[in-house]
Amino acid sequence: MNNPVNSERLRQQFAFCLEMDKEKEIGRQTYLADGTRKENDAEHAWHMAIMTLILGEYANEKIDLLRTISMLLIHDVVEIDAGDTYAYDEEGKKTQHARELAAADRIYGMLPPDQAKKMRALWDEFEACETPEARFARTMDNIQPALLNAAAGGKAWSEKGVHLGQILERNKNTASGSQTLWDYSRENFIEPNLESGQIMPD
Amino acid sequence: MNNPVNSERLRQQFAFCLEMDKEKEIGRQTYLADGTRKENDAEHAWHMAIMTLILGEYANEKIDLLRTISMLLIHDVVEIDAGDTYAYDEEGKKTQHARELAAADRIYGMLPPDQAKKMRALWDEFEACETPEARFARTMDNIQPALLNAAAGGKAWSEKGVHLGQILERNKNTASGSQTLWDYSRENFIEPNLESGQIMPD
Repeated sequence: MNNPVNSERLRQQFAFCLEMDKEKEIGRQTYLADGTRKENDAEHAWHMAIMTLILGEYANEKIDLLRTISMLLIHDVVEIDAGDTYAYDEEGKKTQHARELAAADRIYGMLPPDQAKKMRALWDEFEACETPEARFARTMDNIQPALLNAAAGGKAWSEKGVHLGQILERNKNTASGSQTLWDYSRENFIEPNLESGQIMPD
Repeated sequence: MNNPVNSERLRQQFAFCLEMDKEKEIGRQTYLADGTRKENDAEHAWHMAIMTLILGEYANEKIDLLRTISMLLIHDVVEIDAGDTYAYDEEGKKTQHARELAAADRIYGMLPPDQAKKMRALWDEFEACETPEARFARTMDNIQPALLNAAAGGKAWSEKGVHLGQILERNKNTASGSQTLWDYSRENFIEPNLESGQIMPD
């Protein structure tokens, strides 16, 4: 082990880094702002990480930026195995948790034990949504697609026939990460699309 | 300014966040590992940020992970205006710096002054490559495409007829961020592709 270049540790780490590449092929339901195509998980995670750098000051409680960003960078990697479950796919959501747990075991398990434990703990923290960092990460996970959906003229909402009640249900915890960002999203992204008919009233 | 939801600050921050979306449409010359398509700037930045979480322990000097990751997340946004300049495009590289400076002025300038200054300083730090964080970020910027190029069978190198000398020139500072990761990259990504003929000898 004197030369880390030949270590099993480094081999495992690079195998995990290569596996991450697959997240670029996991499609989401959100269109880019110009509406030309939908984004993928890697793009989504990158966008939320930048948004956290810029908007982190609006968290309700003080957050550790590195932990929040780390959580956002890695929380969707389970979708490499489990696929993306659309926020309003009620059938898919029934099996989502079990599929994602198995994926987390396999994918984080590719890392050396200390890092596997650390990354898995970040994912568990995101899922539990009980810390200020996890709550803010959830806020980002809801605000980022709303920003894009509104910029793309509400297309993702109208194509799926999404109702206001579904959006409010999905966003029931968005304000617990940041009241300010939830208010901004409601006033600037959601309400105008309700008025224009892209989001259906209940 | 009592209600931040209506503040000019928040409006500027969201305008910047929306502008970032364009980076998903800036193509690079690196293929995904499965060779099906080339990646874009947002995917590249996300991948390097994760790799920094996993491989940061191999930095030659201790690095601040948040600053390194922040740098990697935002350093390519200048390409929204300036486009991606391929590492071996000698003509394009002549005007690259001037194009990127103008882009940095415009794009970071969309932010409120304090954040514009902070993000611009991170970009300047990356460009100057004089801190441990910037050196490690450069290492990531060279190792990540080598990992993917090797996984894709060396296609990106062979299609462009890249010579070993060009790769070594591009990587002349890679070891200054991490000797271990440079050694690993040379032994596992570069040398096998030189032996198989995907990289041309000098």
